[in-house]
Amino acid sequence: MTQSWLPSLITATPQEGFDLVITLSRRGVKYTQPDSDKLMAMRSAYAESADGLTAASQVIAINFQTISAANNYWRG
Amino acid sequence: MTQSWLPSLITATPQEGFDLVITLSRRGVKYTQPDSDKLMAMRSAYAESADGLTAASQVIAINFQTISAANNYWRG
Amino acid sequence: MTQSWLPSLITATPQEGFDLVITLSRRGVKYTQPDSDKLMAMRSAYAESADGLTAASQVIAINFQTISAANNYWRG
Amino acid sequence: MTQSWLPSLITATPQEGFDLVITLSRRGVKYTQPDSDKLMAMRSAYAESADGLTAASQVIAINFQTISAANNYWRG
Amino acid sequence: MTQSWLPSLITATPQEGFDLVITLSRRGVKYTQPDSDKLMAMRSAYAESADGLTAASQVIAINFQTISAANNYWRG
Amino acid sequence: MTQSWLPSLITATPQEGFDLVITLSRRGVKYTQPDSDKLMAMRSAYAESADGLTAASQVIAINFQTISAANNYWRG
Repeated sequence: MTQSWLPSLITATPQEGFDLVITLSRRGVKYTQPDSDKLMAMRSAYAESADGLTAASQVIAINFQTISAANNYWRG
Repeated sequence: MTQSWLPSLITATPQEGFDLVITLSRRGVKYTQPDSDKLMAMRSAYAESADGLTAASQVIAINFQTISAANNYWRG
Repeated sequence: MTQSWLPSLITATPQEGFDLVITLSRRGVKYTQPDSDKLMAMRSAYAESADGLTAASQVIAINFQTISAANNYWRG
Repeated sequence: MTQSWLPSLITATPQEGFDLVITLSRRGVKYTQPDSDKLMAMRSAYAESADGLTAASQVIAINFQTISAANNYWRG
Repeated sequence: MTQSWLPSLITATPQEGFDLVITLSRRGVKYTQPDSDKLMAMRSAYAESADGLTAASQVIAINFQTISAANNYWRG
Repeated sequence: MTQSWLPSLITATPQEGFDLVITLSRRGVKYTQPDSDKLMAMRSAYAESADGLTAASQVIAINFQTISAANNYWRG
């Protein structure tokens, strides 16, 4: 986990920012559960639960706030 | 999922901002569960659960913070 | 849902801001569950559950952050 | 509910700000469940549940962010 | 509860800020459940539940945002 | 718990910022449950529950907002 995976919070477009948010959100989970097999099993578990999905999308929404602010909302 | 769906966070009015927030919120869910059939089944599940509805509206409220800040609150 | 319901985030007083927050919070729920009858049934469900009430008031608190910032906290 | 209860977000001290936060948090609940008797019954319910208490203190924490920002953190 | 417990949000270091956050988080709970005996019983309850612990640390994280912003992140 | 563990919120890179976030998030839990053995038992419990994992990653996302703002998003 010492390899480089987050060189910058800056992206060219909002959509690339959203992709970075997905990466960030998955990393947060991976730090808590580093075992890939267990992680994959749980990912399919919460992806098939309505409550799990909504909770996952809350994390995404929080991280999207951060990345959007970092990029000055790509106001151009 | 590589097609363009988020060209900008800027909207003309608060209400268009709210519509963008709905799009954003659904995308977050779709990234976690890309299978459309499963997604539709769960969407109706949480839309008919009081807890699920409230959790979904938390995601909307967080995303509305982001889009409102991006647009300087449409202060005009 | 294309009629105008959110012309501005600006209000004259904090209390009117709080009223707008209630509108916003209900709209978020309505976008997820557009069926008014189902919505009314669930609203009474979560209004009579301690957990549901607290979750609903989290949404209100998040939206009040947004509206307060939009109005520069009505610092006058 | 049309009487005045939120004339300003500005307080003299952080502690008075915290008191205002409690008022705000209770109002959010009251808007969702206006019936005082039901409200009192539920308040004692969540005040005696560990999860309910923590959820209520999340609402307080979110509202404290708002009031602290409104007061420029009472930096003096 | 009228004694002074929150004279300022400003602290000398990030770590003292974190200590203040713990105080703030406990106060939020105490306002909701003022009975010390019940409170102690519940505190041990959620401290021994994984979900309760995570929820409590969300409150801490939200309050740490507030105190960090109040102190301009101790940028020095 | 009086030893120094949070000298600064400033880090050289986003990735080091993320590492600090993990430290912060674990400290929040540790303040609530100081007993290391109980903590380890619960950590493995929530690391193997989909809901627990998502809740833990919400705390991480909130703390990452704080650390990113502290570092001006490492805009360079």
